[in-house]
Amino acid sequence: MADKYEKVLELAKRRGFLWNSFELYGGTAGFYDYGPLGAMLKRRVENIWRDIFVINEGYYEIESPTIGIEDIFIASGHVGGFSDPLTECQECHEAFRADHLIQDITDNPDTLSADEVSGLIKSNNIICPECKGALGDVYEFNLMFKTNIGPGGKRAGYLRPETAQGMFVDFPRLVKFYRDHLPFGATQIGKTYRNEISPRQGVIRLREFTQAEAEIFIDPRVKTHPGFSEVSDIKLTLFSQEGQDTGKSEIITLGEAVQKGTIAHEFLAYCIARTHQYLLRVGISPDKLRFRQHMKDEMAHYAADCWDAEILSDRFGWVETVGIADRTDYDLKAHARQSETELTVYVPYDKPKTVTRLAVKPDMGVLGPRFKGKAGKIVSALKDLKLKDLTGDFIELTIEDEKIRIEKELVDVGSVTEEIHGENIVPHVIEPSFGIDRIIYSLLEHAYFEEEVEVEGKKEPRIVLRLPPEVAPVQAAVLPLLTKEELIKPAREITESLRKKGILTAYDDSGTIGRRYRRNDEIGTPYSITIDYQTLDDCTVTIRDRDTMKQVRAPLEGIAGNIYDLLYSGSFREWC
Amino acid sequence: MADKYEKVLELAKRRGFLWNSFELYGGTAGFYDYGPLGAMLKRRVENIWRDIFVINEGYYEIESPTIGIEDIFIASGHVGGFSDPLTECQECHEAFRADHLIQDITDNPDTLSADEVSGLIKSNNIICPECKGALGDVYEFNLMFKTNIGPGGKRAGYLRPETAQGMFVDFPRLVKFYRDHLPFGATQIGKTYRNEISPRQGVIRLREFTQAEAEIFIDPRVKTHPGFSEVSDIKLTLFSQEGQDTGKSEIITLGEAVQKGTIAHEFLAYCIARTHQYLLRVGISPDKLRFRQHMKDEMAHYAADCWDAEILSDRFGWVETVGIADRTDYDLKAHARQSETELTVYVPYDKPKTVTRLAVKPDMGVLGPRFKGKAGKIVSALKDLKLKDLTGDFIELTIEDEKIRIEKELVDVGSVTEEIHGENIVPHVIEPSFGIDRIIYSLLEHAYFEEEVEVEGKKEPRIVLRLPPEVAPVQAAVLPLLTKEELIKPAREITESLRKKGILTAYDDSGTIGRRYRRNDEIGTPYSITIDYQTLDDCTVTIRDRDTMKQVRAPLEGIAGNIYDLLYSGSFREWC
Repeated sequence: MADKYEKVLELAKRRGFLWNSFELYGGTAGFYDYGPLGAMLKRRVENIWRDIFVINEGYYEIESPTIGIEDIFIASGHVGGFSDPLTECQECHEAFRADHLIQDITDNPDTLSADEVSGLIKSNNIICPECKGALGDVYEFNLMFKTNIGPGGKRAGYLRPETAQGMFVDFPRLVKFYRDHLPFGATQIGKTYRNEISPRQGVIRLREFTQAEAEIFIDPRVKTHPGFSEVSDIKLTLFSQEGQDTGKSEIITLGEAVQKGTIAHEFLAYCIARTHQYLLRVGISPDKLRFRQHMKDEMAHYAADCWDAEILSDRFGWVETVGIADRTDYDLKAHARQSETELTVYVPYDKPKTVTRLAVKPDMGVLGPRFKGKAGKIVSALKDLKLKDLTGDFIELTIEDEKIRIEKELVDVGSVTEEIHGENIVPHVIEPSFGIDRIIYSLLEHAYFEEEVEVEGKKEPRIVLRLPPEVAPVQAAVLPLLTKEELIKPAREITESLRKKGILTAYDDSGTIGRRYRRNDEIGTPYSITIDYQTLDDCTVTIRDRDTMKQVRAPLEGIAGNIYDLLYSGSFREWC
Repeated sequence: MADKYEKVLELAKRRGFLWNSFELYGGTAGFYDYGPLGAMLKRRVENIWRDIFVINEGYYEIESPTIGIEDIFIASGHVGGFSDPLTECQECHEAFRADHLIQDITDNPDTLSADEVSGLIKSNNIICPECKGALGDVYEFNLMFKTNIGPGGKRAGYLRPETAQGMFVDFPRLVKFYRDHLPFGATQIGKTYRNEISPRQGVIRLREFTQAEAEIFIDPRVKTHPGFSEVSDIKLTLFSQEGQDTGKSEIITLGEAVQKGTIAHEFLAYCIARTHQYLLRVGISPDKLRFRQHMKDEMAHYAADCWDAEILSDRFGWVETVGIADRTDYDLKAHARQSETELTVYVPYDKPKTVTRLAVKPDMGVLGPRFKGKAGKIVSALKDLKLKDLTGDFIELTIEDEKIRIEKELVDVGSVTEEIHGENIVPHVIEPSFGIDRIIYSLLEHAYFEEEVEVEGKKEPRIVLRLPPEVAPVQAAVLPLLTKEELIKPAREITESLRKKGILTAYDDSGTIGRRYRRNDEIGTPYSITIDYQTLDDCTVTIRDRDTMKQVRAPLEGIAGNIYDLLYSGSFREWC
């Protein structure tokens, strides 16, 4: 029997949600097209993300290129370390993830080097799963798609493996945009790429996919969140490090989780709350959602804490869909090093601090003529001196490998007291990172129901996608009861008026009304509007609710506004 | 003095619309980032496109990968012909567009072969513009970014040079989605790539850019449009082939243009109308917009007609921004050939046609045993025979290179009369193709004004972006008159309520109120809401209009709804 994944994909293919890419040419693993309904669903899922993170949280979206230059990915570590171990069959030349081949032999294949994996493959006589040929040596295969920018091989380009780097590279511009006020954040929704060795999990593991990421730059000393009280009562399922040790998740409020220290701090917990709200709003079942903390050995060495939103799917079990991490100052420091640029924010103190420091004043009247072109460098070096360097009669300096000696009396040493109003700090980064494609597959699966319904006294099966009205691709269907000109005309006009209001409306006059309802149930159309002969008499139509299949008679006047309100606030404007 | 391009870019950079990509690492020509305001502006410009073409015209959006496989671009002609002639300096190794170097020497460098361009460079002693070194031989440089899918060099991948191919490749799925009803259309808004040899026109010529394209599949015999009467009175500036010969454009209605045969047909004219409406709606000045017809020698050989929307810019003159073409059946036939798949739509006749055809009925009792395994193929061959093949005593067939002879009496030849209900046809394609980045630059330029205004009796300069409210990135600013807690609190609450309504709202309490107005004028914020001490008394605020700088006093109650109505319908709900 078909499992749910198969059923959902069959529907998704047939009705235009998801199509294998390049099917006309035989297809290629790891690529999916969003068909007409899928792309619209995706737009809506992305727009809700924008509503929460961009408009309401105020983390502006940016858009940086999908092609990046090498420096970026050297700094980020992707050139060096973004790879999977690969082994190729010596006979059929099929490539395999070497770590997958030894999954049953060792507990932690991820932690082994290529040589160690090679060794295990040989010592266990593992052969090609396809043709039983011998497997070659294991090597690390970099998962970035590589290309060249401009002619010749002079300038390497990489398709970005995450959108995040765009925000880090733009950090100096962002600091100015936000006029040096921490915390601030920037977001990006866009394509990212991962040249998988041999992807085998359908829509769950893609070579080209969409991420929505926020990089929120915060003062490392202030990891509270001013809005935390709004979300501290939210209850959700946490699967903490401790819980994983004992195999138990717990349902707990975020307030408690922070207080007990399960979640490192308020800011992270706040992001978990917004993620939770987002996922429920787009249609993820609350009982199929949990937040799992990364174990100590799976967390990046620099991360302070990291939680994944995991969504339960029928075939794949708990699937990692969102990662929410405190990445500390790792990324900014890496880019500062690589670009030789200071990446800091000036943070003023509440009260100025008074400090006393050494003031060194060289006698330029003598030093200038004596050292000419070198004098500038000598002055800088003198100003950097510490008190301990000034004890003898002479000051010793090394300028451009040359030892220089200056008489103490040529340098006036005193001290000055200054008020310091603030300091430059490297912010910490909180990063919620969403895999949009996995969310879309998951919400389709959670919305998919096969039911038996009674229609005119007879039982018949129906498939219904119980999508939240806000994400349903087709928002309303307009159905003339019969294919008669006198019904078609008002039906067309109603369709127009709904579309003018921005409501994606399908007009459908082919087949029995029952069949048209079924068709719309299957794609999750929340409301179907039927025009019949009574419409011509009294200017009313029926509005049918997808989930309950109940119909109400409603006036034609203001229908577009009323469907709009039904979609976005779940209630009719005045009547009904 | 700075020209307008420079002024607009300075503002765009400073205020977060457009940033040079990878600036932290020195930048790379041909790449631009959309900063916080630019990305939001872009989203809105894209969403208006969706509103017109997807929701109102009903051409569903799809989303196919940005990476494509080689077959696609062999079929489309990009592997063979998507190139520019390149010459490299033998000294400094800088690469140049060879056709650009001979622009002053010949009128039509585009039409020359690489060898001819090479010849002209040599005979005219053209040297490297950078270092005066000798230039190398000219060759065609393919403009697609190339990469590899999966490990090894086995499977080439290309970054798509246009979104259009995604719709063509999905044609079989789209036909089913639209249940075989012509016309139907599919659209895509997404990244496309062009590996320019050495891009030198800033935001006008990018290596990575965004297209919005519609591929509309129509019956080749029906190029009228049911909605044409709605747009036939629209007047616009046409620069036809004839007009270009005489150097004159004309302002004419679309109805007239079709009637005179200037525009090939209604369907194309309808698309020009929607394009015109779209461009004005996002903020292009009508007096800086014209539609230019491709000249016979610049049009693709297969195209029936093609018009570019051109937008006037201060530095670059008339810039091609949208192309609207009747591409006939070229693309579908090319993919049908390459994929060996029939790409047609079954179109039923209004009335069935009666046809009489030859009916050939072989005597299987004899032929079956005689030819065994081959019998099936022989029967098919017999059924394909024409009357002229059946004149002798024997029928001659060639099956798998073997000549076969069959006695005439073993084949009963008659005729049958049949009703045919329709036929398979290859649709024609109408393609409106929009360059989103050029539109965004252009509307910024057209919205940019430097003015002298009177503030409290004094004249001062202001820069204002007169963006249509619908596209302005920041839609409202909330400004407490003074940085006092009693004003900040309601200001924060108003900000929240606007954001909840989906309105992108900036809260700003730093600097004088005049300075904050200036700041918002410069980024095109349509409405600024000021909270003052009167607010605390009578629950009113002032709303300031960006363009007129007029202020009205308005009640706090329902402010979010009212700003929403102002933005999207240009009027207050009830009061005022």
